[in-house]
Amino acid sequence: MIAERMAVKSPPSNTQTHTSGVIQFKQINCVTFPLPLHMSEQQLLKPDEWSYCDYFWADRKDPQGSANISGFEVLLQKQLKGRQMQKEMAEFVRERIRIEEEYAKNLSKLSQIPLAAQEEGTLGEAWSQLKKSLADEAEVHLKFSSKLQSEVEKPLLIFRENFKKDMKKFDHHMADLRKQLASRNAAVEKARKALADRQKDLDLKTQQLEIKLNSKIEEDIKKARRKSTQAGDELMRCVDLYNQSQSKWFEEMVTSSLELERLEVERVEMIRQHLCQYTTLRHETDMFNQSTIEPVDKLLRSVDPATDRELWVKEHKTGELRPVDMDI
Amino acid sequence: MIAERMAVKSPPSNTQTHTSGVIQFKQINCVTFPLPLHMSEQQLLKPDEWSYCDYFWADRKDPQGSANISGFEVLLQKQLKGRQMQKEMAEFVRERIRIEEEYAKNLSKLSQIPLAAQEEGTLGEAWSQLKKSLADEAEVHLKFSSKLQSEVEKPLLIFRENFKKDMKKFDHHMADLRKQLASRNAAVEKARKALADRQKDLDLKTQQLEIKLNSKIEEDIKKARRKSTQAGDELMRCVDLYNQSQSKWFEEMVTSSLELERLEVERVEMIRQHLCQYTTLRHETDMFNQSTIEPVDKLLRSVDPATDRELWVKEHKTGELRPVDMDI
Repeated sequence: MIAERMAVKSPPSNTQTHTSGVIQFKQINCVTFPLPLHMSEQQLLKPDEWSYCDYFWADRKDPQGSANISGFEVLLQKQLKGRQMQKEMAEFVRERIRIEEEYAKNLSKLSQIPLAAQEEGTLGEAWSQLKKSLADEAEVHLKFSSKLQSEVEKPLLIFRENFKKDMKKFDHHMADLRKQLASRNAAVEKARKALADRQKDLDLKTQQLEIKLNSKIEEDIKKARRKSTQAGDELMRCVDLYNQSQSKWFEEMVTSSLELERLEVERVEMIRQHLCQYTTLRHETDMFNQSTIEPVDKLLRSVDPATDRELWVKEHKTGELRPVDMDI
Repeated sequence: MIAERMAVKSPPSNTQTHTSGVIQFKQINCVTFPLPLHMSEQQLLKPDEWSYCDYFWADRKDPQGSANISGFEVLLQKQLKGRQMQKEMAEFVRERIRIEEEYAKNLSKLSQIPLAAQEEGTLGEAWSQLKKSLADEAEVHLKFSSKLQSEVEKPLLIFRENFKKDMKKFDHHMADLRKQLASRNAAVEKARKALADRQKDLDLKTQQLEIKLNSKIEEDIKKARRKSTQAGDELMRCVDLYNQSQSKWFEEMVTSSLELERLEVERVEMIRQHLCQYTTLRHETDMFNQSTIEPVDKLLRSVDPATDRELWVKEHKTGELRPVDMDI
């Protein structure tokens, strides 16, 4: 459908002005490509976009050079790898969540340990606030980890459950079209050979007629010419079927690669947004953390040994009456 | 010495206009205090400071009401408790250091896990930076913990090794002076009793003389008067020694409590400064942490699926030559 919207004309056939004996195309794995002479006539379908639909028409030999990987398979593998990357990113974030939770747990635990809890006065207040600030910090990191989970990890983990199945369907569909192309190509070859045989037979009969005129031979030539015409018609029909098949495959290649391209854009955008959310949450964490320390700063500015002494003396004094000399 | 600088006149003796039979003072644990009548004549030595030297002259009964705790002992206990608080704060900071180290270790470890390392293009760059930012964060927390150790924990832990010993010396010195005071007080009591006996004897002899004039009795009276005078002199000598002793104790009480006060101010100031250093380091940590995320933000802004597709297509394309119709 996308291909239709682009008004792509599937394999332009008018470039093939076939002259007997001059081969205008070459075939690779049953796909018909133009010869270098005609390459320049092809414009990219989407010249400014590095679109997938322009660059995966050929097959790729695997490193051993034995099996062929179709261009479409290369695209599919990228999709599956992208899906794997997304899953691994979610795992990474999951581990960060775990680290934040543990950090928060440790800070919270420390804030509750009664170390120096008996410190008194203004210093005691500042100290209590310093301990409380740890509980506040713990809260900030716990919130960070909880938001990381709901706003980053979960969204990254959400894939269409059937993504892999969908990709398999794509794969099978395109492979089926290539198989059809191959069988129709074989039919063309067979028909081409049959036609050649018929023409050879006709030529032979025609030579016989030149040597010896004979009504039986004339009859044979008529028959051979009819069969040759039939074989020519058959070849045309097979070529037509092949071209229809290739056209169908071509259209599906464009449509599907554009769909994969769209999925890829969607994936990158989705990941980008959620990584941005991660950095936003990290910035927030720093800001909130800073604010946990501010009350401590304030109380530390109020620490005053004189005030502390006053408070302590009021509570603990034993008597302010000084001794005097004894008299007799 | 501090007491001298303050020009403190040790127990003012001129308030005691002793009239025979009218008791001008009361004693508590061998220390001589003025009666309530004369209390108002005492001004605080340091009226605006809630100074230790003004409020610990009496002893304190312990909760069971059995043993007495001297005022000076109360002050010493505060010093020892203060030292304990300082040690506990250092322990608390030590635990925070441990938590930061563990957090840093976990972040650093996570940054090295190769999750999603194969992500490509601009998204791959942003992802790498995000992972690197964890290593940077780890570095920040490691620096925080290391500075906490050198600039907060260690200074808090540094006490004069002999602080406790010094306090013991103070304690023993003051206790010795109180013991001397007690023994001199006993001597005064003994001399007072001796004088009373001698006067009773003189009175008896004087009555005998009234009944019967006799040169032998006159001689006895002379002798008794001489002995009474000697007993009076002895009492005066004992009271003098007692007063000297109390004066010495008084002066040491003022000097030592001012010294303890100075140590307390030093402690509070020292702790305040190092807790301020803690909050400064915490603020720095937040700021540095924020800066670890900025390069990630920048690269996330540069993420572009089109650029990524271009890079990927350039590397992975299989061929841009599109198929054409086969001709016969």
